[in-house]
Amino acid sequence: MDFNKRVVDTIRSKRSAVCVGLDVEPGKLPQILKNEKDPVLKFNKEIIEATQEFTAAYKPNLAFYEQFGTKGFEYFEKTLDMMGGDVLKIADAKRGDIGNTSKKYAHAFFETFNCDAITLSPYMGEDSVTPFLEREDKGVFILALTSNRGSFDFQMQKMSDGRFLYEIVIEKINSWNIKNNCGLVIGATHPQMFEGIRKLAPGIPYLIPGIGAQGGDLENTVKYGFVKDEVLALVNSSRGIIFASDGPDFAERAGEEAKKLRDMINSYL
Amino acid sequence: MDFNKRVVDTIRSKRSAVCVGLDVEPGKLPQILKNEKDPVLKFNKEIIEATQEFTAAYKPNLAFYEQFGTKGFEYFEKTLDMMGGDVLKIADAKRGDIGNTSKKYAHAFFETFNCDAITLSPYMGEDSVTPFLEREDKGVFILALTSNRGSFDFQMQKMSDGRFLYEIVIEKINSWNIKNNCGLVIGATHPQMFEGIRKLAPGIPYLIPGIGAQGGDLENTVKYGFVKDEVLALVNSSRGIIFASDGPDFAERAGEEAKKLRDMINSYL
Repeated sequence: MDFNKRVVDTIRSKRSAVCVGLDVEPGKLPQILKNEKDPVLKFNKEIIEATQEFTAAYKPNLAFYEQFGTKGFEYFEKTLDMMGGDVLKIADAKRGDIGNTSKKYAHAFFETFNCDAITLSPYMGEDSVTPFLEREDKGVFILALTSNRGSFDFQMQKMSDGRFLYEIVIEKINSWNIKNNCGLVIGATHPQMFEGIRKLAPGIPYLIPGIGAQGGDLENTVKYGFVKDEVLALVNSSRGIIFASDGPDFAERAGEEAKKLRDMINSYL
Repeated sequence: MDFNKRVVDTIRSKRSAVCVGLDVEPGKLPQILKNEKDPVLKFNKEIIEATQEFTAAYKPNLAFYEQFGTKGFEYFEKTLDMMGGDVLKIADAKRGDIGNTSKKYAHAFFETFNCDAITLSPYMGEDSVTPFLEREDKGVFILALTSNRGSFDFQMQKMSDGRFLYEIVIEKINSWNIKNNCGLVIGATHPQMFEGIRKLAPGIPYLIPGIGAQGGDLENTVKYGFVKDEVLALVNSSRGIIFASDGPDFAERAGEEAKKLRDMINSYL
């Protein structure tokens, strides 16, 4: 089954479009885990157990693992192993390099780490992306319009034909999507753009960060970013779920926040 | 001392603008290392020992380490430890994320791994880059015009004011370079552009990949990409040096190729 169909199927069977960002920060771990042998892994395990029922995908961002050095990659591998088979495992890595090198990254994330998908940066163009598209069951979410302030620096600059750079990027991504395994990263901080973007890329899934700590607008995100008959978007929340509480109830509260986000999204559909 | 001055000083004191790309590939290792306990580390150690005299910098590309999973990061850390203090350690990682996340990557590469510099992708704009610029002694090389075919997809597309995207990127990078620790990645496959680029960014260092296997033009690269009185560029070669031979003479041959590249660059100056 191709990756984009896997996204639709997972969202449908879980009745959830929630993606939980597993961006662990040692300084924010609950006191109660302080005496654990491995507080980071214990934290991720409890968060995953408490949220998995309400979640279609997990998205560990590699930066939060690389901060620990070699040890962090062990955390990353073990965290992936904790996830059940009914969720998508998305490596938020924003990789992209010349073809020869992207091939190695694809091997790393799809074979060695066995992730289902990876986020990519499009700046280096087609041959930096295509090595990730060889397996139809594995997918990519390519940065198109991101949730941060810096998205105005280049992505929202006008090209010679009057379009924004991100529109040119989306057009190219459409042309690369031969095996139906390309998706887009579109930040929830730009809900006014979603309607136009859906016209450019009607049939491919979005990964939508920027809800919660970054202030994105959930209602308009769902209204304009989603496709009604076939839910084609994953809404990510990281800090808003995993750090909902730093007390002994941290896992329970994370589960509640994941459930709440799931229900809010579903209520807007 | 700020990073860009460190680049100039290192090139001057080593009388070399050579950067060796330590992109290890298990399938290409010499037979003679097959029975080593750790062929990858032994290979890197011998390559570093044979080339360090002729080299201003080493640039391990993370993809080639991530392909091994957790083990690969141990290789990466140990490989960095093998390098002497008279060379620059550049993590070719092409990272870049929202500010909060880039901060973690900066910590990972500058503190945990103790690299001197990292390569970044500019697509997410200013707040994805600035967390890497806090320490003046550590630097970044930001993708501007890359050596691959895909550089035509976006980087060489025209903006509404008639400039290319990469020119806008360079203009922004200049404005971020407050602590004199920003450099550019400019591929040697575009030597005809170097003259114009040097006018846009006269005083900042370039990291120049694309020589060797990718077919870049060394003479014109040096003629137009370098600055005469103060050598402001590192020319990277990976496969052309480290896989010069797969026989028992692999390290000796790598040293010869590094020396040859150093001497050719110096002869064009």
